[in-house]
Amino acid sequence: MPKRKKLLPAKTEHPSEWYTTVVKLADLADYGPVRGTMIIKPYGYALWERVQAEMNPLMQAKGVQNAYFPAFIPHSFLQKEASHVEGFSPELAVVTHAGDEELEEPLVVRPTSETTIYNAYASWVQSWRDLPLMMNQWCNVVRWEKRTQPFLRTSEFLWQEGHTAHASHSEAKAMQQWGIDLYAHIYRSIFAIDGYVGEKSTMERFAGANSTLTFEAMMPSGKALQAGTSHDLGQNFSKAFDISFSTKDDSIDYTWQTSWGLSTRSLGALILAHGDDDGLVLPPRIAPTQVAIITTAPQSDTQSAFARQLLAQLTAANVRVIYDDRDDERFGFKLNKWEVKGVPLTIRLGDKEVESNLATIKARYGGEQRQFAVDDQFAIAVTTWLEEIQAAMLAGSVAAKEAATREATSYDEFTKLVQQHGGFIKVFWEDNPATEKQVKEATHATSRCRLPDSSEPGIDFVTGKPTKQQWLFAKSY
Amino acid sequence: MPKRKKLLPAKTEHPSEWYTTVVKLADLADYGPVRGTMIIKPYGYALWERVQAEMNPLMQAKGVQNAYFPAFIPHSFLQKEASHVEGFSPELAVVTHAGDEELEEPLVVRPTSETTIYNAYASWVQSWRDLPLMMNQWCNVVRWEKRTQPFLRTSEFLWQEGHTAHASHSEAKAMQQWGIDLYAHIYRSIFAIDGYVGEKSTMERFAGANSTLTFEAMMPSGKALQAGTSHDLGQNFSKAFDISFSTKDDSIDYTWQTSWGLSTRSLGALILAHGDDDGLVLPPRIAPTQVAIITTAPQSDTQSAFARQLLAQLTAANVRVIYDDRDDERFGFKLNKWEVKGVPLTIRLGDKEVESNLATIKARYGGEQRQFAVDDQFAIAVTTWLEEIQAAMLAGSVAAKEAATREATSYDEFTKLVQQHGGFIKVFWEDNPATEKQVKEATHATSRCRLPDSSEPGIDFVTGKPTKQQWLFAKSY
Repeated sequence: MPKRKKLLPAKTEHPSEWYTTVVKLADLADYGPVRGTMIIKPYGYALWERVQAEMNPLMQAKGVQNAYFPAFIPHSFLQKEASHVEGFSPELAVVTHAGDEELEEPLVVRPTSETTIYNAYASWVQSWRDLPLMMNQWCNVVRWEKRTQPFLRTSEFLWQEGHTAHASHSEAKAMQQWGIDLYAHIYRSIFAIDGYVGEKSTMERFAGANSTLTFEAMMPSGKALQAGTSHDLGQNFSKAFDISFSTKDDSIDYTWQTSWGLSTRSLGALILAHGDDDGLVLPPRIAPTQVAIITTAPQSDTQSAFARQLLAQLTAANVRVIYDDRDDERFGFKLNKWEVKGVPLTIRLGDKEVESNLATIKARYGGEQRQFAVDDQFAIAVTTWLEEIQAAMLAGSVAAKEAATREATSYDEFTKLVQQHGGFIKVFWEDNPATEKQVKEATHATSRCRLPDSSEPGIDFVTGKPTKQQWLFAKSY
Repeated sequence: MPKRKKLLPAKTEHPSEWYTTVVKLADLADYGPVRGTMIIKPYGYALWERVQAEMNPLMQAKGVQNAYFPAFIPHSFLQKEASHVEGFSPELAVVTHAGDEELEEPLVVRPTSETTIYNAYASWVQSWRDLPLMMNQWCNVVRWEKRTQPFLRTSEFLWQEGHTAHASHSEAKAMQQWGIDLYAHIYRSIFAIDGYVGEKSTMERFAGANSTLTFEAMMPSGKALQAGTSHDLGQNFSKAFDISFSTKDDSIDYTWQTSWGLSTRSLGALILAHGDDDGLVLPPRIAPTQVAIITTAPQSDTQSAFARQLLAQLTAANVRVIYDDRDDERFGFKLNKWEVKGVPLTIRLGDKEVESNLATIKARYGGEQRQFAVDDQFAIAVTTWLEEIQAAMLAGSVAAKEAATREATSYDEFTKLVQQHGGFIKVFWEDNPATEKQVKEATHATSRCRLPDSSEPGIDFVTGKPTKQQWLFAKSY
């Protein structure tokens, strides 16, 4: 039986082939029948369900309520906010016929739901007592893309979109920050991926927002991935959709709004950030299966009984554990299978382990092997190790981010760094769509996010003029 | 402040106005901007999340895995199964343009996903070892309807659709039964709604199925509601999509398939079945909020402290409980608000309760009021009462179903029963699309499901010929 991992190209040499192959081999996804669409298979969907399970309680604690808004948006709705329609028009899928008739007004399949949600908010909000209004939906959205890749960029994807309306700009700004902090938490604590939080440039911000905060993560390929965004929409949509309210002191004002979204794209980041030449490497907190138990002889009753004993102990300790008792796959095949799937720990049991009441366990991340006695401390030893791995993976990501962040003080230095290393390049630069476009056309790099201003001015790497603004640039997915 | 419930028409006198008003007043849903679509508001969506929370573990235990398949289906896919395309064609929404271009092949927004899922299954199934293949997705679907009503019939709705492929017909039949048993469990145990399980007639079965099992519930209006269906697809789709596999004895066969779905329509049944002139009445197991604590004086610190003590005790006992501490709504307004929302128990606290360490609690269903001492048995008393209510509501539904089931031995008797009572009418009838069409046109009643055959033949109420087949007929939503 061939080693499955031999089917996998080396990650550093063939990053793109490695990516599409690992998505298939680990059974995460398959291509859909329509160009640019994907099928999220159970193992991939289980990752998304983990994201939902982590985010839902945090949103609920904040008072954000889940709801569901229609997928179809009247075309005229998008036109109510000028920059919004300009940004999304090229990517729209349009329903022109329904129920065997041509529609009077074409319907757009939601690329994002600001317009349809804010149209509803307008009828729900009357008084400051109705605020803040904070809703979230988990749904599918459609953005027709020319070049697609599973998870990273697909014509249809899944996401959550939070939409909030507030009585004051300061409250909306705090909410915008809360949104990006939520994503930073999900990435750092659950995905074990570090990144930078900062504001987007004028060119890169969301169509319809006054300001976009982003969490930007660096992938091993040297390209950045915009991993989640949170927008201060100001009063742009509340004015376009007439979401007005009577204030505490009985005047009339428009609401201040935010929206924020995290999509199945995040799973692309997870695959890219941690995977290696043997397949996926999943951090324990996101892993659908944290521990796989494999016996050297599936037919052995004593091995099987021992495996079930471990399964019961770990399940009781809330470990997501599987005993792989398939009788048509050999031991080595199973080891490879769970390795490709990136399961954090595999417990390997043979007659020696049964006799000595030991569990031999190997970590996917780092490859360390340990032996534990199977006693009443066993489950604690395993959960402690899972936590260690989670922390070590995050530490690795922090170190990788720092190593991949370089400074450029001139345009020449900048282009050399883009070509030689990729990664984040820290520069003095004054936000300017014209110079950003120029940089993008010459180098394919764009601004990723703004860093805190320098106390002393430096030299804008494009214009040569003094500025205190500091930005990270990179090529991106 | 006006009593909210006074806004509600009497349920028996104006069932349709009652329904649309209670949906609005209880904050379950609102109309979407596109004809026939709805916005599921947080309180309505929380009901759906309860359905998901109940069904997911049961599906998982059966080995059914959650996944996600694309919303867009190439138009040609639907044409591969003749009766499937015929059944769904009149209801399709069609995307003809995307990314600023006209598409070469129009895309259908899924009305159901047999075709796109089985196209994938064809490439995933090779051997009997790949079977059974059992997947489920929670998603939105679109069926363009002429006449719509929130939850009961909307152009876009949410549902789960399970799709399984098996190596034998007997295994598929068992799975079809499992699907309908799952729905019967959800309705009876969670929704406290009894109903009949049986097979659909040739006219009423799913387009593309050999057999459809249905759970049919009777609404107080005298109209039946098809509450969930499970289909034996035979080899219709496996032949259309070439899902073939090598059997254990090395021959080639097509898979045997089932699909089964339960939608947000079920929430319409929940509203109709239990609601009364004062609003919703929710069974405790489905209620997003099981207990609402209301104090007579929101400004009173001692009342508030006592309320928080009860909140903590009930929360610790896993009761879904809210302390309504809004300071802009009066006691009576809050009582009405939670009454309209159908919360099973409301705890009313005044100074008397604080002084005597008692909780005065009123049940929404039945209206009984009880007093409990707030001691270490308090939470148990409350959870026991919630269970009692759940059981009493189901018993009420069983009795209502029986009272609404009548027998007709002739066509005349049948039409009289349809006109005078509605409800289920039990008849001898031989499944026949021609005679069913005739009955439908004359009375608006259709067959709802087949009952077990009679041991002795009776007289077909339409043709007068002898038959052992027994069926339930009714008007339906």
